[in-house]
Amino acid sequence: MNDTVAQYLTQHADRFVDELKEFLRIPTVSADPACKPHMLRGAEFVYRQFSRLGFNAEIVPTAGHPIVYAEWLKAPGAPTVLVYGHYDVQPADPLDLWTTPPFEPTLRDGCLYARGATDDKGQVFTHIKSAEAWLNAVGALPVNLKYVIEGEEEVGSRNLEDFLEARKKSFACDVAVVSDTSQYGPNQPAITYGLRGIVAVEMTLTGPKKDLHSGVFGGAVANPASGVARLIAALHDDQGRVQIPGFYDDVTPLTDAERKQFADLGFDEEAFKAELGVTEVFGEVGYSTTERRWARPTCEVNGLFSGYTGVGPKTIVPSKATVKITCRLVPSQDPHKIVQSLETFLKSKCPSSLTFEFTSYHGCPAFVLDPTSPYIEAASQAIREAWGVDTVRLIREGGSIPVVQTFKDVLGLDTLLLGWGQNTDNLHSPNEHFSVTDFHRGISASAGLWQKLAEMPK
Amino acid sequence: MNDTVAQYLTQHADRFVDELKEFLRIPTVSADPACKPHMLRGAEFVYRQFSRLGFNAEIVPTAGHPIVYAEWLKAPGAPTVLVYGHYDVQPADPLDLWTTPPFEPTLRDGCLYARGATDDKGQVFTHIKSAEAWLNAVGALPVNLKYVIEGEEEVGSRNLEDFLEARKKSFACDVAVVSDTSQYGPNQPAITYGLRGIVAVEMTLTGPKKDLHSGVFGGAVANPASGVARLIAALHDDQGRVQIPGFYDDVTPLTDAERKQFADLGFDEEAFKAELGVTEVFGEVGYSTTERRWARPTCEVNGLFSGYTGVGPKTIVPSKATVKITCRLVPSQDPHKIVQSLETFLKSKCPSSLTFEFTSYHGCPAFVLDPTSPYIEAASQAIREAWGVDTVRLIREGGSIPVVQTFKDVLGLDTLLLGWGQNTDNLHSPNEHFSVTDFHRGISASAGLWQKLAEMPK
Repeated sequence: MNDTVAQYLTQHADRFVDELKEFLRIPTVSADPACKPHMLRGAEFVYRQFSRLGFNAEIVPTAGHPIVYAEWLKAPGAPTVLVYGHYDVQPADPLDLWTTPPFEPTLRDGCLYARGATDDKGQVFTHIKSAEAWLNAVGALPVNLKYVIEGEEEVGSRNLEDFLEARKKSFACDVAVVSDTSQYGPNQPAITYGLRGIVAVEMTLTGPKKDLHSGVFGGAVANPASGVARLIAALHDDQGRVQIPGFYDDVTPLTDAERKQFADLGFDEEAFKAELGVTEVFGEVGYSTTERRWARPTCEVNGLFSGYTGVGPKTIVPSKATVKITCRLVPSQDPHKIVQSLETFLKSKCPSSLTFEFTSYHGCPAFVLDPTSPYIEAASQAIREAWGVDTVRLIREGGSIPVVQTFKDVLGLDTLLLGWGQNTDNLHSPNEHFSVTDFHRGISASAGLWQKLAEMPK
Repeated sequence: MNDTVAQYLTQHADRFVDELKEFLRIPTVSADPACKPHMLRGAEFVYRQFSRLGFNAEIVPTAGHPIVYAEWLKAPGAPTVLVYGHYDVQPADPLDLWTTPPFEPTLRDGCLYARGATDDKGQVFTHIKSAEAWLNAVGALPVNLKYVIEGEEEVGSRNLEDFLEARKKSFACDVAVVSDTSQYGPNQPAITYGLRGIVAVEMTLTGPKKDLHSGVFGGAVANPASGVARLIAALHDDQGRVQIPGFYDDVTPLTDAERKQFADLGFDEEAFKAELGVTEVFGEVGYSTTERRWARPTCEVNGLFSGYTGVGPKTIVPSKATVKITCRLVPSQDPHKIVQSLETFLKSKCPSSLTFEFTSYHGCPAFVLDPTSPYIEAASQAIREAWGVDTVRLIREGGSIPVVQTFKDVLGLDTLLLGWGQNTDNLHSPNEHFSVTDFHRGISASAGLWQKLAEMPK
């Protein structure tokens, strides 16, 4: 990488961490209506990062939370890169499990602890700081850059597609870059060439119109908590297979080559169990843990509630019971079809004595990129230099980044998924964190990537 | 009834309501540790009611919430009556379903709305005001009275038995009176000669030690919400029969005579469904709704929670899932045996990939009183006069009043269960209320009862 840029990164390393802390202090929980004012503050923070570097930047209002768009297009003839990230974060609860408060970023054992530290504020910030380094140290970037930093990734990127559609004519780019995934392990950088898709739904069963005394009425009306339990129980067999008719019909099966490639990556099951605190792994029979996580579809309960949830007993028959479910999808499964099958299945199992309500949130299909793409080679070089390692692994991940499909569908772009964090960074969990070393290596790899992409043969 | 007493009741009717409101303003939720100071205020309120009437009264500390004991024993040769009630109430949530706040008693359409209005503050208050009337109007009571007003009925009367055991030598009484049940319907007063028993348990299944990202880890570890759902689903068959081995073994079946007696009471199923807001009734196959409510055992989910319970989706695999369950028991079922069977059953169904925790709260067996008891006849007369009706029904109820069994076991006493409220008064539900007319008729019946009991042949 350019020496002047490298020197700048070293000189300003501590300030980068301080600025990231400032970003993390803003509670940009997109799912929580109470956080709406903080969402705007989050967008403004991102906007200022770009405007002070001389980018053309704007805060674009949407029907939901705003999108920050910024562009620097002063490298004629050089490739144009679309950088995507999000400034919104997952809800922080359960709050009592955080060692330090989720929106008071704290350095501990070489890591920065805060909601959003790795997902995605910390990771997207690496691409902002790498641009700053080139512009402040060298005075120009080797490539043209367009940044789209949205505020609704954690709630399904509801307004992103409309934004991209509206601007697609002026959006000519060569490749997209997204850092919202993970390394394969500590000091094992990776490029992710596949992601699972997702659908999210919620079902509520209603029995009596209010909670009833379980002595006076118990035994004489259908209990919605029992009803919802029976429906959830019907979703899987004893061996972890989803029982929704047609659920696996469109799944592209793993090839023998892929199964071998996954197996060759190595997997430490004992370390995995210790990390999660489980005595055994469990999943769809016939597949390895890596296959279950990266390449098999799931149907998971994310939340469940009914009746009295306080301390001690309360003798009621609940009025309502609600379950939140997400399915992770693999290549060739259609989100709409899966939601429909799920609804039909649950409805068919719902007893006539309970009322059935079903809500569908958001969905996106799975994504797979050709692992021989020259963009992957360019990124791999930049990462090897920043990390000082010989190998960059090619992996898939189990999570979902709907925008990757949108970039393909709307803009015809392939996406480089460059994860700087670890999947043990507690993303979506209490005590989310990001290694400060990984943060700095990410900035360095990003700065190198701009150069490698500029040097690619046309 | 004594005319002077009757006149006093009329003159002071409005003040009685005001004093009950004062009682209802104290949030004596025994299950909520935060209400501990209010529990003492509740006990002090009750204590002052007695002390100002010249009762020997005391606030008896226990390991939990205090018991108020008061006695007036200046009717030598007359029967001694033990009056039991409780000043604690159920939790008020869900708060947003209350039309007016649960601890701001409000008169509306002839009813007093507040948590505890009927269960049990309003009902126990009738027996306090009836004693006041005799003492203030006549200067003496026709019977000796001993009051035990506890603060832990809604959490299983944990310390009552020890209190009674400790004092049993000085506790010689002839009969116990409890008003914590209901009339059969509006203007259909009833004496309850049978109650169901109860056991309350809680089960928590734990999977990963923290909530996990459902994309990164979903499909590779057991989900405790799915696990708990499968266990709940296993509790019943499709026809409402409990599947715990041995659950029905000790049940004393209903006789044909009892089934006829229940049927003869009449039951308006359409009104029942409309009241509860359900399109159909549901329960154990082969039994009527009245039989299901009064004389068949149940296994009901009272509460259920796991993972994310906020607004919108959250893509996690939950760490834990908890269910609260109560079983209502019928004559000859043993609470300890039922709890053990339930635990064994659930544990046997718990997959090895999840950790099983089980807590048992409180229990009591079912109760049945001989319907030909002369005490029932005395009470029936007092009620007929107060209500101005020809018939007092003999009914059973589905709820549980553990103290009734304690009175039998520890003190050898039969209990008159005299319900002044309606089972539609939303006890244990939002918008609990008590008809002001029923409140006054209850006081009048109580005042008459003291006289009828005094007049009973020795």
